[in-house]
Amino acid sequence: MPVSAPLVAKLAVFGVGLIGGSFAAALKARGAVGEVVGVGRGRANLDAALKAGVVDSIAEDDRAALDGTDLVLLAMPVGQMAPVMARIAPLLTPETVITDAGSTKRDVVALARKHLARVLPRFVPAHPIAGAEKSGASAARADLFHGRHLILTPQSENDAAAVALVRHAWEICGMRVSVMDPDTHDRVLSAVSHLPHVLSYALVHELAGRANAERLFALAAGGFRDFTRIAGSSPEMWRDICASNRDLILEDLDRYRAELDRLEALLRSGDGAGLERLFADARDARNRWLEIR
Amino acid sequence: MPVSAPLVAKLAVFGVGLIGGSFAAALKARGAVGEVVGVGRGRANLDAALKAGVVDSIAEDDRAALDGTDLVLLAMPVGQMAPVMARIAPLLTPETVITDAGSTKRDVVALARKHLARVLPRFVPAHPIAGAEKSGASAARADLFHGRHLILTPQSENDAAAVALVRHAWEICGMRVSVMDPDTHDRVLSAVSHLPHVLSYALVHELAGRANAERLFALAAGGFRDFTRIAGSSPEMWRDICASNRDLILEDLDRYRAELDRLEALLRSGDGAGLERLFADARDARNRWLEIR
Repeated sequence: MPVSAPLVAKLAVFGVGLIGGSFAAALKARGAVGEVVGVGRGRANLDAALKAGVVDSIAEDDRAALDGTDLVLLAMPVGQMAPVMARIAPLLTPETVITDAGSTKRDVVALARKHLARVLPRFVPAHPIAGAEKSGASAARADLFHGRHLILTPQSENDAAAVALVRHAWEICGMRVSVMDPDTHDRVLSAVSHLPHVLSYALVHELAGRANAERLFALAAGGFRDFTRIAGSSPEMWRDICASNRDLILEDLDRYRAELDRLEALLRSGDGAGLERLFADARDARNRWLEIR
Repeated sequence: MPVSAPLVAKLAVFGVGLIGGSFAAALKARGAVGEVVGVGRGRANLDAALKAGVVDSIAEDDRAALDGTDLVLLAMPVGQMAPVMARIAPLLTPETVITDAGSTKRDVVALARKHLARVLPRFVPAHPIAGAEKSGASAARADLFHGRHLILTPQSENDAAAVALVRHAWEICGMRVSVMDPDTHDRVLSAVSHLPHVLSYALVHELAGRANAERLFALAAGGFRDFTRIAGSSPEMWRDICASNRDLILEDLDRYRAELDRLEALLRSGDGAGLERLFADARDARNRWLEIR
């Protein structure tokens, strides 16, 4: 069999954490990348990535990282993206495609329009919806994205070839790709991810502040563990998400409070039939979701 | 080796669902019960229990079920407990100990004081904190209770021997036993179980009612699945729990809304440091809890 060239000859990952590291590991596992160079703030984390074979080298500097690079993945928290974009913008050559893995998209697009204006046709924003409480290169794994959703939010200026490359790379990682505009992305994620995280953090924080917190936690069971699993997520990352998607999260919080109003009214009036119907509708909607997943 | 008599020669389970069936299965698996008779509303469910060997027979009537019985477990939803108590009260003999597995305890104790007044010293209320979205005898398993918490809420009138028998039976099932009064039980469970269930149902119900619900659910991921797992619970059971623990759930809902007020203020004012601190405090409290579990 002839040896075919990999999809990406050289990949530079800025931010070799769970997402960046798993992207590199997945492409490597499928022979879709020739060389991976890692760039990041934490030396220990980069060394771990090198030792695990997630990256082939650690870049001396940005210029070395970007030299001859086909694809750049920006995989740091959204709050750290602006300075990295500003730093690399002058070093990017016309053959380099750039993508990101940021959890919010309106803000990343706005940052790119500001800092990456010169190379906008080749910046393709994306969000792989995958994660875990774990973080860092040592948590990276080649199968993290398998069967999960990738949301691509291409811009009108994008080169078709750049969009195709990014899409193809994530499909090779096993992701199911949806395309939407950044506003729709941020609305959807606010409802099914950002709001639940806020609600989960709020419950744990409220209970932890009570005088009898120790007894409460001692008797908490599996339902509590699952409801609060996302309250184990990175506070720094969720601070950034709340900052960048604040308006939509506040809208969703309003809707949720209105739902709690309705539920409280049913509770106060002792409307058992009404409560049972609400619970059954929720259960049925969730069961339908589990079936189509 | 001499053959020793089992702890319970004859056990009658009223309501052979997940909890009642698993209690019987656990005692059988450990040789702690001689004979198990099942009583319930649904014939198909009882037949399944018989076929699975969870019960040895299905009672012809209450008198047959209670004849020569050492231990009775009332394992139906709390909302169905009153009529069963009223029915069996005249048939109970002085050698029979009665316990229940109700999710709330103030109301069960009040019902027992009304309907089981004659045998109150031998009615020992308890709540095994274990469950799953699944229900019915076919979901029963001998290891359901292993390592979980059993809360015993003995009454001042209780015979010490009756309390010891109930405690011992649940310990044989592998449970860790705590003793508290019914009010404390209901307060603790409201905070770590009932409130989270209500919050989870509310989120799914609110999202399911939106025009773009299909798209929202299509892109929901693992965090959403875990947060909403308890919204897959039995609507009938949770209607009953909400009815019987209404005052305390409403108190906890008030506290939770106050926490959402604080969180919303941090969001609105763009207080990233305050949000990160709240999220970190919650994460740390949860991690400490996971360590001591």
